Amino acid sequence: MVPLRLYRHLIPQLAAAARSPSAPKVAAACCAPRPISPPPALAMAAYGTGACADRRLLFRQLFEKESSTYTYLLADVGDPEKPAVLIDPVDRTVDRDLNLIKELGLKLIYAMNTHVHADHVTGTGLIKTKLPGAKSVISKASGAKADHSVEHGDKIYFGKLFLEVRATPGHTAGCMTYVTGDSDGQPSPRMAFTGDALIIRACGRTDFQGGSSDQLYQSVHSQIFTLPKDTLLYPAHDYKGFTVTTVEEEVTYNARLSKDKETFKTIMENLNLSYPKMIDVAVPANMVCGFQDPPSKV
Amino acid sequence: MVPLRLYRHLIPQLAAAARSPSAPKVAAACCAPRPISPPPALAMAAYGTGACADRRLLFRQLFEKESSTYTYLLADVGDPEKPAVLIDPVDRTVDRDLNLIKELGLKLIYAMNTHVHADHVTGTGLIKTKLPGAKSVISKASGAKADHSVEHGDKIYFGKLFLEVRATPGHTAGCMTYVTGDSDGQPSPRMAFTGDALIIRACGRTDFQGGSSDQLYQSVHSQIFTLPKDTLLYPAHDYKGFTVTTVEEEVTYNARLSKDKETFKTIMENLNLSYPKMIDVAVPANMVCGFQDPPSKV
Repeated sequence: MVPLRLYRHLIPQLAAAARSPSAPKVAAACCAPRPISPPPALAMAAYGTGACADRRLLFRQLFEKESSTYTYLLADVGDPEKPAVLIDPVDRTVDRDLNLIKELGLKLIYAMNTHVHADHVTGTGLIKTKLPGAKSVISKASGAKADHSVEHGDKIYFGKLFLEVRATPGHTAGCMTYVTGDSDGQPSPRMAFTGDALIIRACGRTDFQGGSSDQLYQSVHSQIFTLPKDTLLYPAHDYKGFTVTTVEEEVTYNARLSKDKETFKTIMENLNLSYPKMIDVAVPANMVCGFQDPPSKV
Repeated sequence: MVPLRLYRHLIPQLAAAARSPSAPKVAAACCAPRPISPPPALAMAAYGTGACADRRLLFRQLFEKESSTYTYLLADVGDPEKPAVLIDPVDRTVDRDLNLIKELGLKLIYAMNTHVHADHVTGTGLIKTKLPGAKSVISKASGAKADHSVEHGDKIYFGKLFLEVRATPGHTAGCMTYVTGDSDGQPSPRMAFTGDALIIRACGRTDFQGGSSDQLYQSVHSQIFTLPKDTLLYPAHDYKGFTVTTVEEEVTYNARLSKDKETFKTIMENLNLSYPKMIDVAVPANMVCGFQDPPSKV
């Protein structure tokens, strides 16, 4: 595992981001819970989430039914090489994903995880065995092995497009949210891949893997709810058939995170969830997501 | 069942479309199979399908896991009333859909079916009992009862946005594809809701409900593959976790419809599919989709 910042100057697709006021360090910015004043229903949806006039970004949302996981493919198709990133691939659907990437003529450069998943095995290890040029990415704070260990404030470039890395711990200690850039030429509205920090109308559990309801509340309110209200939020999972939401919707209607912090903490402490059936397989595998051994050729 | 064309002048949201050269009548236009010359992979994806700069259309894709059905919500949020349409709702997920519509402050005006489904019960009947203002829509050619019976060339308006109705029979005799408009102010790229006429890399079966492989091939090649190559295609189902495709992708990679007509017909005749488990419940229910009796209040 090599910390990204040490050799960032060697990799043109990766660049350190200045810590901007809009993306403050979590520890400094998330101490005061933000009061939420829900707008009336008719003020909602004053923006669209439809077909895209942005011709530079190719975007695909992919679903793995067994664990209800979303994998996201993003590519800069304005770049001759069509560099692409895959967020939260699942081992079971790697062949599907790589076939699509091939059909679309894309060059996968990064296979990324928002966090160390407990409910499925990441596809990043398998991808590296099948596509040796692709590099795995996960947060340094996760403690997991990968080719690139990212930190809050990093920017992950694919062509001229990039994802900004925001630390959103609380579901696990190493959770990151990847957010499209806010400068000219980046997708509009912005898009945030929230992992399990925020799922549609809910959030990931906080009772294992270094989880903390206090920290999750701070993370979401300081790093996600401060994004423009029309930002499209894409979670790592959905169990009810929703595919996308927005900051405005979640600020208003999230059944947990729209509450005050104490109410949120009480909700999270009383979920009474069962032990995840995949955790004992998934977590050890995902801690070495980038360096899984290739299948032996017997 | 009232044919839409008879009282179209009374309904501002609905207007007859002149039969334009780009939307020819099926019978006249689909006789000659179009030769397909697949472009090389790197010519693919020269356009994006990402977050949207179009601020008028609100678009949501919703999934029903048991039948792997996609339901689509479209609304004109530039209109003060935020009029919306719902394409292919499922009975089991009606409450989810209506709650989302309420949260987003939309006014559902049409609950539409692309065809008489055989694998699930449509939600349109239930929607009418819960939201009496919403009207059901299906093709006249389906023979099913609904508030509005649409025909090829009709335009279905919601606010200033509209869907063009294209007859794409072959999976069933009454299948329609709904396509966003091509004039100024309509979504770009265009979006087509193909029902079971085309599903991603495949198509609906053609061995019951007036199905015909010959007719399906003609329908797709004349009504869908003639759309701009960057048109986003949204099917009624997906079983592998894909959410969207494009005309260019399907012309090149559809495992059935990219072949010549005789090969396609041979493929379709040899699928050896089992009898759909839901058909004997679903089809009778869906033939009266707009006039289901409200649940009795015992």
